Amino acid sequence: MKVVIAGAGFGGLKLARLLNNKPGFEVVLLDRFNYHQFQPLFYQVATAGLDASNISFPLRKVFQKSRNVRIRLAELKEVRAAENKVITNEEEIIYDVLVLATGADTNFFGNSALATHAFPMKSTVEALQIRHRLLQLFERAHLEKDEAALQRMMNIVVVGGGPTGVEVSGALAEMKQYVLPKDYPELDFTRMNIFLLEGADKTLAAMREKSSQRSGEYLEKLGVKLMTRTLVKNYDGQDVELNNGEKIPAATVIWAAGIKGNIPNGIDKSLVAKGNRIKTDRYCRVQGSENIYAIGDLAYMETPAYPTGHPQVAPAAMQQAGMLASNLRLMEKKSNPDKYLQFEYRDKGSMATVGRNLAVVDLPKPKWSFGGFFAWMIWMGLHLMLILGVKNRFFVFMNWLYNYITYDQNLRLIFREFYKETDDQKMLKS
Amino acid sequence: MKVVIAGAGFGGLKLARLLNNKPGFEVVLLDRFNYHQFQPLFYQVATAGLDASNISFPLRKVFQKSRNVRIRLAELKEVRAAENKVITNEEEIIYDVLVLATGADTNFFGNSALATHAFPMKSTVEALQIRHRLLQLFERAHLEKDEAALQRMMNIVVVGGGPTGVEVSGALAEMKQYVLPKDYPELDFTRMNIFLLEGADKTLAAMREKSSQRSGEYLEKLGVKLMTRTLVKNYDGQDVELNNGEKIPAATVIWAAGIKGNIPNGIDKSLVAKGNRIKTDRYCRVQGSENIYAIGDLAYMETPAYPTGHPQVAPAAMQQAGMLASNLRLMEKKSNPDKYLQFEYRDKGSMATVGRNLAVVDLPKPKWSFGGFFAWMIWMGLHLMLILGVKNRFFVFMNWLYNYITYDQNLRLIFREFYKETDDQKMLKS
Repeated sequence: MKVVIAGAGFGGLKLARLLNNKPGFEVVLLDRFNYHQFQPLFYQVATAGLDASNISFPLRKVFQKSRNVRIRLAELKEVRAAENKVITNEEEIIYDVLVLATGADTNFFGNSALATHAFPMKSTVEALQIRHRLLQLFERAHLEKDEAALQRMMNIVVVGGGPTGVEVSGALAEMKQYVLPKDYPELDFTRMNIFLLEGADKTLAAMREKSSQRSGEYLEKLGVKLMTRTLVKNYDGQDVELNNGEKIPAATVIWAAGIKGNIPNGIDKSLVAKGNRIKTDRYCRVQGSENIYAIGDLAYMETPAYPTGHPQVAPAAMQQAGMLASNLRLMEKKSNPDKYLQFEYRDKGSMATVGRNLAVVDLPKPKWSFGGFFAWMIWMGLHLMLILGVKNRFFVFMNWLYNYITYDQNLRLIFREFYKETDDQKMLKS
Repeated sequence: MKVVIAGAGFGGLKLARLLNNKPGFEVVLLDRFNYHQFQPLFYQVATAGLDASNISFPLRKVFQKSRNVRIRLAELKEVRAAENKVITNEEEIIYDVLVLATGADTNFFGNSALATHAFPMKSTVEALQIRHRLLQLFERAHLEKDEAALQRMMNIVVVGGGPTGVEVSGALAEMKQYVLPKDYPELDFTRMNIFLLEGADKTLAAMREKSSQRSGEYLEKLGVKLMTRTLVKNYDGQDVELNNGEKIPAATVIWAAGIKGNIPNGIDKSLVAKGNRIKTDRYCRVQGSENIYAIGDLAYMETPAYPTGHPQVAPAAMQQAGMLASNLRLMEKKSNPDKYLQFEYRDKGSMATVGRNLAVVDLPKPKWSFGGFFAWMIWMGLHLMLILGVKNRFFVFMNWLYNYITYDQNLRLIFREFYKETDDQKMLKS
C-alpha cells in the first residue's frame, strides 16, 4: 500500500514513524521544509533564547535507516483525487492512500494590509524574521531624532491572547528587562511597551478560569500592557487601529490571533468547515472520499465529546496519527472494517509559560490547575521530552540553563540573505 | 580621543577590546554584521558540522559592560579624510583616529561569470548558502533523468588549495562517505566527485614541504580528486573550463582561490598595493595620512622580515591590533613618538585540518612539522581556545564530540527567506 503523507508536523511525522519499516507499506513523506519544526518553541527562537536548529530536526535523519519511508522536499500543489495523484512543485506522485497533514497557517482574515505589515510566527523561518526585525529596529532606533517615530519603534504589539501570544509577550518583556538595556545603552528601554491585545475578556481563554487569571497576573507582573476585549481593525505598518477607534503607534506587530487550515487545491469547497478545515468522518477520512484522510490542525471532525471539533493542538494530531496508523495496518491486512478505530480526542491537559518560574498547567484527571515555579518546571520537562533528537534536547536544555543562570539570551544574531540567487538556484527554488 | 574602528574581525575586535574602558578613549566599532565571525570554521558551517550561531558572537554582548565602546551595525561607504569623517549607510561619524580593519573578500579576478555562478565562503552567511545549495541539490537530484545532468549535480569543484580549499574539500569528502548515502538512499554517492583545483604544484603552498605533501596524501586518502597546476579560465554555471582546455561539468563551484582587500571609497588609488591592500608604514599608518590606520588583511606593510608584506592571517591582524593599541595609548598620553612601537610579524606557526584525525601543523620554534591525530587534536584545542565566548566554545566542542562519535553532521537544515520584506524593512536595510 503506497501512503503519501503531506506535511511532517506532529501528525504527519508520527504517522510516518508508525508506518516505518512495516511490511506492506511504502511511504512518501512530503514537506516544504527538510526538517520537522517544533512549533511550541517558535517564540523562543523569535526572542533569541534558542537557535533555530535546536528546534528543527532533519527529516532525512529521522528515516535514515528506513527501508520504506522516502522524504520529498516539495510543496503540495494539487490533489487529483480522480487519478489518485498529487502534484508537487517537483513531480507527480501516485498514491493508494493520501493523508493530508498540512496543518494550519496564520489567518489574517482576508486583511491584506495586516498580512503585509504584521509578522506571523507559524514557522521557524518566520520566528527568525521576528528576531531579525526586532534587533534591526533597535540597532537603528538611536538615530531617530523624531520623538513620535522613536516611540513607534519602541512599541511592540502582540495580537492574540492564546498560548503563542502570551508566551511571546512574556519573553519580550523579559528581553526588555534583562537583555536589551545592557545591549543598547543608547536607548531608554523604560519607553519600550509590549501590548498584548485579546478579543475575549481574558488571556488563555481555552484554559480554566484560574489559569487564565494567573496568566493575566503574570503578564502584568512582567510589565506587559494587557488589553482584553480589544480587536484590531487594521494596521498600515505605522499605527494599529482598534475597534474602539483608538490607535497604537507600533513599528512591529506580531500576529497570533488566528489560524486557518492549509487546504491544498483540488479539495471540494463543500468539504470546508470553519477555520478552513476539511470535514472528516470519525476515521479521519475526508467526507465523500475513499482513500483521502486529513489529520491534525487541518481536520474538522465532530465527535460526541467534541461536537464542534477537537482543539487544534499537537496531542490531537498525534492521537489521530496513532489511530490512523492502526486502521491502515488493519486495512493492509484486509481486516473487517468493523474493527477500525473511531477517533475521540483525549485531553491530557494543557499548559503555557509566561516567563522565568511562571507557567500555568491544567490537568484533566485529577482536575487540577496550578501555576508558578512548579508548573514552569513541568512545562520545561515536558517540552524537553517532546523535542526530537537527543542532541537537540541536550542543546535546548543547555541553552535554557544558560539563559536561566545568566538572565541572558545569547543568540542575538542577524543572519540575512541566506540564499544566493544564481540562475540555477532560482530553478531549484521554483 | 575618538577612535572609529571599521570592521569587527580579528583585528578590529581585538583593538576595540584593548581600548575598552581605557580613559581618554571613545571608541565606535562599525560592522556590517551585528556579530564577530570566526572565519577559520566557516567550512564546518558550510558542511553542516556546526551551527552558524556557534561561530558568531554578538558584538553588543562583548561590549555590554563597556563605558566607552559603542557598536554600529552599518556599512562603511566612504572615508572623507579631509573632514575626518566616515560616511556609513546610516549616518556620518567624525573621528580623531580612523582604523580600517575591513579585511578581505573573495577575489574573482574580475571574472563576472565566476562571481555570478561560483560560491564564495568569506562570511557565515556565504557558508550557509553553500550548505543550503548542496542540500537543495541532493533533494532534487533523484528526479533528474538525464545521466549527464545528474553527473553534473554530483560533481563539486573546489578552487584553491590553501587552507580553506583543503578544509572544505576534506569535509565534503567525509560527508560523501559518512552522511549523504544514509540521508539520500535514492542517490548513488559513488558517483559523487570532489575536485580540488590548485594553480601551484601542491596544496598548502604557504606551509612547509612536508605539510604540503601530507595534506595532499590526506586528501587523496579521503577520495578528493586533487588537480594541481590547474587554473580555472571560466565557469558558466554548467562547466568549469580549465586553462588546458578541459572541462569539468559541475553544478557547484566553491571559490577559495584568492582574496582582495575591502578598500572603502575615498582612499587614494596610489596607496593600493598588490591584493588590493592599502600601503602602510611600520606603525600601520596609511601612507601619507596622519590619523588613518589600516590593520589585518587590508594592510600592506613592508618590513625587514617580510619585505613583500605579512601573510593575511588572523595572528597578523591581532598582532597589529596589539601594537596599534599601545601606540594609541602613548599618543593619548602625548608621549614622545620615539617610543612608538614598529610592527614586525612574528610567526607562531600555522596549521590546517583535512578530516577526522588528519591535520598538519608547522611550528616555527622549534622548527617542527607534524601531522595526523596529534596535529588534529592541537588544531581543535587551539580553535576552541580562540572562539569567543564560553557558551560558543562549549557548543562547538559538544558538536565536535557528537560528530566524532556518530560520524554524523546533524545540522542539515535549509532555512530560507530569513527576511520578511515589508516596506519599512526595506528602509531598514538600505
